[in-house]
Amino acid sequence: MWTQPEWMKRLNMTYPIIQAPMAGGVTTTELVVAVSEEGGLGNIGAGYMSSEALAKQIQEVKKRTANPFGVNVFVPATVEENEQEIKRAFELLQPFHEMLEIQPGCPSIPTNADEAFLQQIEVIVAEKVPVCSFTFGIPSTDIIKQLQENGTVVIGTATTVEEAKMVERSGMDAVVLQGSEAGGHRGAFSKTPGMIGLMSFIPQAVDVVHIPVIASGGIMDSRGIVASFVLGATAVQMGTAFLVTEESGAQQVHKRAVVQATEDETVITKAFSGKEARGIANTFIEKMAPMEDSLPPYPLQHHLTTAMRKEAAVKQNSAYLSLWCGQSPRLSKQQSVRKWMKQLWTDVASFL
Amino acid sequence: MWTQPEWMKRLNMTYPIIQAPMAGGVTTTELVVAVSEEGGLGNIGAGYMSSEALAKQIQEVKKRTANPFGVNVFVPATVEENEQEIKRAFELLQPFHEMLEIQPGCPSIPTNADEAFLQQIEVIVAEKVPVCSFTFGIPSTDIIKQLQENGTVVIGTATTVEEAKMVERSGMDAVVLQGSEAGGHRGAFSKTPGMIGLMSFIPQAVDVVHIPVIASGGIMDSRGIVASFVLGATAVQMGTAFLVTEESGAQQVHKRAVVQATEDETVITKAFSGKEARGIANTFIEKMAPMEDSLPPYPLQHHLTTAMRKEAAVKQNSAYLSLWCGQSPRLSKQQSVRKWMKQLWTDVASFL
Repeated sequence: MWTQPEWMKRLNMTYPIIQAPMAGGVTTTELVVAVSEEGGLGNIGAGYMSSEALAKQIQEVKKRTANPFGVNVFVPATVEENEQEIKRAFELLQPFHEMLEIQPGCPSIPTNADEAFLQQIEVIVAEKVPVCSFTFGIPSTDIIKQLQENGTVVIGTATTVEEAKMVERSGMDAVVLQGSEAGGHRGAFSKTPGMIGLMSFIPQAVDVVHIPVIASGGIMDSRGIVASFVLGATAVQMGTAFLVTEESGAQQVHKRAVVQATEDETVITKAFSGKEARGIANTFIEKMAPMEDSLPPYPLQHHLTTAMRKEAAVKQNSAYLSLWCGQSPRLSKQQSVRKWMKQLWTDVASFL
Repeated sequence: MWTQPEWMKRLNMTYPIIQAPMAGGVTTTELVVAVSEEGGLGNIGAGYMSSEALAKQIQEVKKRTANPFGVNVFVPATVEENEQEIKRAFELLQPFHEMLEIQPGCPSIPTNADEAFLQQIEVIVAEKVPVCSFTFGIPSTDIIKQLQENGTVVIGTATTVEEAKMVERSGMDAVVLQGSEAGGHRGAFSKTPGMIGLMSFIPQAVDVVHIPVIASGGIMDSRGIVASFVLGATAVQMGTAFLVTEESGAQQVHKRAVVQATEDETVITKAFSGKEARGIANTFIEKMAPMEDSLPPYPLQHHLTTAMRKEAAVKQNSAYLSLWCGQSPRLSKQQSVRKWMKQLWTDVASFL
């Protein structure tokens, strides 16, 4: 029904199933290894990791699987820092700090985002990681070429057809189409909102983009996988479905919230990071909603809410955690990756 | 790959393709007849029609096809009228009236919505219309039973799984799932927004709803049709794809705008009617955006903007027209229904 492109053969993937590179500790070595061992593509979400921590996890993954895997990095944004604005935005968080009984000081914002990004790339090159994907933008041509010449397959992320064309023009090997259904941060980098449902997004993209497209957003089982292929995708990327698995490092309270949620309980919010993301509505999102448009941009707000999110995790308090989740939580199941992926492919095959 | 349910056999539909019941003159007798003659289900959008005009069109359709067809009606909402609010909202439209060089008086708002609705139902009963679908709510059990006992298949519209369950519980025969991709008015009747992408909506709905589900939103060709079946739908409903056809009564300037639009140019707006709807962004939507939340509710704002929309149609000025459009305009083609539907089914069959 669909043609497996050259790069999938080269990656030795049995199944065209990519585990989304979720940041913040979700993509444990256990999760990445389990997905790659089962014939999919495990992915380390390197988003906020130091290059040292990234190198360490890559080496751990390599020790435990000979199969290909990937690393995802965030393309850094240039933001103007305004001390006044940051102080004011931090003040807005005091009621939540009080509820959690903490008194953090206003954090200093890291100013070395570009440097940290380049250090991550150095690690990926040094470790010859099989796949490197990018979110929030397009890296320089030099970086793309360097990775490709080193044997790495390079993947971009797009939220509109125009962004997919930009990824293609940049020379990357494939593009993830992030549908409006997707949980977590929006990968939009040209203009907002780019909230296109996959039923619309996939066919309109494949009609004009020639590199392989990977569908993501709301795909949780064989029905979504086969539908994506029918619409023109070459592979699928699944986040929420892997987030709730036993191997994932997501907070227990987060996994529980997803499994119990319904499709109409997620919202798009900028409250946690300054950038649009889809998560289950909770107290923090609701109370911050009126202030959303005056918050400092990503990644400033992300750093400002770090203390709150950390303490909420310690206390397993879902009211102040970012409960990222796509639009299909009713289809989520807490199970082991190994058992689930075997069944998944049997189910897919029954359609074909 | 999917099972055609009893009610489709009963309707003698060759193809499980429903032409969406677009209101405002789009669903001409030519369009409805062409779709039904080609083996799909043509639908009269009776939304704002008088019962006399509706009876006349039903009789015209019957004269020209022996095949089944449908009528869609809007379940009336009870709104509080506030003369001050209406006057203030009408004042907001003066700049647009000036641009169009008209000076309409503040319209009187019809107060007989319930009566007009019941008269439409009477016509549908008297004419023994094969299919009757409802938008914006669930009619009384008496009406549903009366129609069914008269031989009419009754269909509801839902934007969330919960709404789909409400339609099922009401005793209706099938439910249209309106994905977030859909153009025109949102059918939400329990709470807003209910903006679920079809990739998420269809499988989550069919897992808990037992009546046949009809997928709608962004479906324009065989890929969307087959993907909807894979996800669990029994039939599809297409609006934008039929809106641009030769047989459709949409304004030429509207058809042209759709064919030239890209997937990221539609927005959700309440500016035209007081109720959320998806259309191509234009001057009116952009200028009204800051005032959106203070506009009177549907259908008050609809009546207030009638003069503006009428004049914009006369002048073929797309800046002040409601250019309803789903999220897949890149897939739209100006062609004749008769030619297109034959090809469409050949394309669908090639997947199966």
